[in-house]
Amino acid sequence: MAGEFDLIAKYFKPLAGPEGLGLADDTACLAGLYNHDLIVTKDILVENVHFRSDDPVELIAHKALAVNISDCIAKGAKPKLYWLGLALPASKGEDWVRRFCDGLKDAQEAFGCVLAGGDTTRTVGPVVLSITLLGTVPNGQMIKRVGAKVNDDIYITGTLGDAALGLWCLENGKNEEKQLISAYQKPMPPFMFGQKLAGIANGSADVSDGLIADIGHIAASSGAGMRIEKEKLPLSKHADRLLQSVPDLWPKIWSGGDDYQIVFTASRKYRAKIKTLAIETRTQVTKIGEASTTPGVQLLDKDGKIVQVAAGGYTHF
Amino acid sequence: MAGEFDLIAKYFKPLAGPEGLGLADDTACLAGLYNHDLIVTKDILVENVHFRSDDPVELIAHKALAVNISDCIAKGAKPKLYWLGLALPASKGEDWVRRFCDGLKDAQEAFGCVLAGGDTTRTVGPVVLSITLLGTVPNGQMIKRVGAKVNDDIYITGTLGDAALGLWCLENGKNEEKQLISAYQKPMPPFMFGQKLAGIANGSADVSDGLIADIGHIAASSGAGMRIEKEKLPLSKHADRLLQSVPDLWPKIWSGGDDYQIVFTASRKYRAKIKTLAIETRTQVTKIGEASTTPGVQLLDKDGKIVQVAAGGYTHF
Repeated sequence: MAGEFDLIAKYFKPLAGPEGLGLADDTACLAGLYNHDLIVTKDILVENVHFRSDDPVELIAHKALAVNISDCIAKGAKPKLYWLGLALPASKGEDWVRRFCDGLKDAQEAFGCVLAGGDTTRTVGPVVLSITLLGTVPNGQMIKRVGAKVNDDIYITGTLGDAALGLWCLENGKNEEKQLISAYQKPMPPFMFGQKLAGIANGSADVSDGLIADIGHIAASSGAGMRIEKEKLPLSKHADRLLQSVPDLWPKIWSGGDDYQIVFTASRKYRAKIKTLAIETRTQVTKIGEASTTPGVQLLDKDGKIVQVAAGGYTHF
Repeated sequence: MAGEFDLIAKYFKPLAGPEGLGLADDTACLAGLYNHDLIVTKDILVENVHFRSDDPVELIAHKALAVNISDCIAKGAKPKLYWLGLALPASKGEDWVRRFCDGLKDAQEAFGCVLAGGDTTRTVGPVVLSITLLGTVPNGQMIKRVGAKVNDDIYITGTLGDAALGLWCLENGKNEEKQLISAYQKPMPPFMFGQKLAGIANGSADVSDGLIADIGHIAASSGAGMRIEKEKLPLSKHADRLLQSVPDLWPKIWSGGDDYQIVFTASRKYRAKIKTLAIETRTQVTKIGEASTTPGVQLLDKDGKIVQVAAGGYTHF
């Protein structure tokens, strides 16, 4: 079977209207309502694919909302409303629903949006969650993947790889790595910072499938090449310590996925503004490279040599 | 575990914003954009719950869109855009996706809307489909459940029970009942008629869980009682013939679900207008009763005696 993106391009793209932006961006854009455009995104999460059966129920709810928030704010938009689809096996009783809604409540308060509807049903399979999120951005200011320009600076928010390493820890019995595990179970997209990127960033995407894959989408859409310096990739001290003892885990930093941070490009003239914004919103923001005329994504080591990375990031097909 | 609607009222309603209309209508309403309000609905479909594994793939796609179209047009709104969530087991290959998109293409052309985005993923369980549909209605003209008034006429579009009888035929090897089976596999909501109900109907809902259940939602929301005459319920000739040989199937007419027709109430002054609209859009529209001051739903036989119906319609919990 063809890969996920091939399937989308081949079968789903012909069905899309102009608001779908060729199904080649993180969200759709409904332009020209009031003085704001509406941004809509939808992610589907499956038990034991996107979360583990024994993850705390409250955090499963948090994650289901957070992964959509991540798409929304990466476009410079402010989250407003969401719709929840929930397919639940009989093994999940009312207590599960109560805990799930407790988690949703905390998450929607943290992310400034409210529930607007949805649907619940039984299934004989794993839990499947589907959230559709609607946000707003001032007219014409959605940050699209296509906007990146040669010579732009490339930035990443937060740290990379913690979630993928956290999942590895869970799967390998290293339950003492609480911060890494928390990064996997409770992703925190840079909510305040992302919403302020409209008008500053030229190209942007959330990092859900891994840095190389997601910045690859920006490169492919915009035609600008992405040159990343491995030495500059921001690591948490927990990730750094684990990598020192298990160096084989390094590729998880750029291909592990589940980071829900924002990778964006911006003109050099905004360097001071981005620094100020990072301080104001208490967000770690790191310049990791520059957009170039060489197509695609290049990851360079400290000697300027190309680091070989496996093709693409996480895909489902 | 509490029932589906109890769960919604208890756990999900506290999470809802005003656009969610208390999670007590078929859709949300985003008011005051341009001179139109935006109507959003989301339904989730699970293999072997909402459709059968061996239903034609094209028709599964049709049904996934049609059940959302049904909610949208029951509110008097015009469908515009939809987002698709698709969780697919490994047994479904590219051919399945191709056929699914062929079905979607036909359905979106029939229903005048286009794809705007979504998400696809693998699952180890049954196929789960989630569509979020957005439509538009002139400002303030969404037909809400709450609007029904005492002395209103009650109408239903199309015929009742065909889909539920069609499912029964499939499950009982009566494969010769092609029209009934088609009603189950390829529901056709009254697309043209529904969109013209804004400004005419006072209260409206789509019939997805069975007539009694869905008109019960209008009764509960509006406070007007619903008095239905069994003799007036519109049956197809195929349903009529099957009921003559298997009279035990009668309850499927009002409680079977999956009709995707519109039940609505309107002032008597609109009788001529509704008749004209039915003719113009070639839609079967039948007056089946009147709204009264007696709370709840009453189904009366030809002697005016109450027909006992099981509580509620199809619920998932």
